[in-house]
Amino acid sequence: MAKIKCVMSYDGTNFSGLQIQTKQRTVQGELEKALAKIHKGAHVKVYPSGRTDKGVHAKAQAVHFESDYNLAPSDWKRALNTLLPPDIHVNETEEVPAEFHARFDVVEKEYRYYILNETEPDVFKQSYVYHYPYALDLVKMQEAGRYFEGTHDFTTFSSAKASAKGSKVRTLVEVSCHQHGSLLEFVLRGHGFLYNMVRIIVGTLLEVGRERLEPDEVRSLFDGKDRQLAGDTLPPQGLYLWNVRYEETDTSG
Amino acid sequence: MAKIKCVMSYDGTNFSGLQIQTKQRTVQGELEKALAKIHKGAHVKVYPSGRTDKGVHAKAQAVHFESDYNLAPSDWKRALNTLLPPDIHVNETEEVPAEFHARFDVVEKEYRYYILNETEPDVFKQSYVYHYPYALDLVKMQEAGRYFEGTHDFTTFSSAKASAKGSKVRTLVEVSCHQHGSLLEFVLRGHGFLYNMVRIIVGTLLEVGRERLEPDEVRSLFDGKDRQLAGDTLPPQGLYLWNVRYEETDTSG
Repeated sequence: MAKIKCVMSYDGTNFSGLQIQTKQRTVQGELEKALAKIHKGAHVKVYPSGRTDKGVHAKAQAVHFESDYNLAPSDWKRALNTLLPPDIHVNETEEVPAEFHARFDVVEKEYRYYILNETEPDVFKQSYVYHYPYALDLVKMQEAGRYFEGTHDFTTFSSAKASAKGSKVRTLVEVSCHQHGSLLEFVLRGHGFLYNMVRIIVGTLLEVGRERLEPDEVRSLFDGKDRQLAGDTLPPQGLYLWNVRYEETDTSG
Repeated sequence: MAKIKCVMSYDGTNFSGLQIQTKQRTVQGELEKALAKIHKGAHVKVYPSGRTDKGVHAKAQAVHFESDYNLAPSDWKRALNTLLPPDIHVNETEEVPAEFHARFDVVEKEYRYYILNETEPDVFKQSYVYHYPYALDLVKMQEAGRYFEGTHDFTTFSSAKASAKGSKVRTLVEVSCHQHGSLLEFVLRGHGFLYNMVRIIVGTLLEVGRERLEPDEVRSLFDGKDRQLAGDTLPPQGLYLWNVRYEETDTSG
C-alpha cells in the first residue's frame, strides 16, 4: 500500500462543502468517485486536513488516501485531473510515509478572506468575494487584528454550533489586513481554527473598520466568552483555505 | 409612456443565454420578471441590443423598455437591482427619446475574449476565461488580427447556422490582441457581428498563434467563403459583450 498526499484547489460555489454527504455534491464525494474509477470500482477513502463549508473555496487543501494501484506518485495528479470535474484541480501529488495523516499532522493552516469594498457589486465576483459597500478604516482593522494574534480562548469567536466539548483555546500567528485597490485581503494563520472562527473574526474586524468597535475593545470580547459579543459570521464566498503546512512540506505553490 | 434605456452586466454562467425561452433561465426572462413585479404583474417587453449565447457574459449590455410607471429615470436602476438576481446588475438607467431602439440604433459593439494561457487551469476562472495551455506567438496573432479589420464578407467566419438570408458583409474597426501576464485579451469592435463570428475569429487567431496558419493566409480564408477553412468556434465562457455604442451615448463606465 502506498500513501499518497494530494494538494488541490476547488471552487466551492457548487459544492455542499468538502465532507461527503448522501445525495449532495461534495468535494470528497467527487474525489472518491474519481478514485473508485481508477480502482475498478473499489472504494478508496479520502482523509482531508479538515472540512470546508458549502460555498467556501480552497487554494491548497491537502488530503491523503491509500492505494495499492501501481502508479508513479507524480502520475496520480494527471490521472485524477482527467477524472475530476473542472471545479476541482489537483495541484500536486506525492508519496508520503505510512505514518503521515493529512488531518493530525497539520502544523499550520492559512485562511484568507476577500472583501470587495466598492459601492457597486461585481457580477463576475459574486461567488468569489464578499461585497461590502461601506467605508472601512483599514488602519483600525489592522490594529484590531493584532489583538487576535497569540494564544486565546476563542469561545466568543466561534459558532455556538461548535462542539461543546474540548478546549476553545487556539493560537493564531497572523491576523492581518491588506488593501489591493478595492479588494481587502484578510490573512489568518494558526495552528487550528474553531467552527466559523475565521468568518466571525473578520466580521468583528468589519465592526472595527466601521468604527462601531474600538480595536482595543477586542480584548474585552475575549473575556466575555459570549458569541453574541462578536460581529456577524460573514458569508462563505469570500473565504479560502489558502494553505496547509506540515513538517518539512508545504502545500502552496 | 417613458422609454428607458438600461445598461447591465451579467455573469452568463447560469443563464441559457439572453433571449427569453420557456422553462429556461434567461437574462431577458429575469429582467421581464423584475419589471412585471414593478408593474403589478403587467408584462413589459425588453428589447436588447442583440442576443448573447448560453455561458456568454456581458460587461455592458444595453436594452430598452417602455413604462407608464412614474419613476425618476435614475430610480429605475435601484428598483431593478433590488429585484434582480445577483448575477445581473444594472449599471445605469436613463430616459431616452421615443424613437430610440436598443437594437436598431447600435453604432458599434465591442466584444472581448479572454484566454488563460497557462499550463495549469485555474478552478476559480473556469467560467470566466478559456484555458488554453499551448504556447502562442502573440506578434503573429496581432499581425493576423489586422487582416480582419475593414469591410469583408465574413461567411468563412460565421456559423453555418447563421441565417442564409442577408449579406455576410460586415465592417470591423478593431481586432487586437493584448497580453496581461498569462491572460490574453482579444478586443473586437465593429458595426455588426454574425452568429459565432467573434468566437470563430479568435479561434482562427489561435491557429495563427500556434503557427499552423500564417497571418497573411487569413486573406485567402476570406476568399474561400467556407466555414470549414477557419479555426474552431471557441467556448462561450471567454466571451464578453463589452460595450454597445449609440449616437452620443456610450454604455461603458
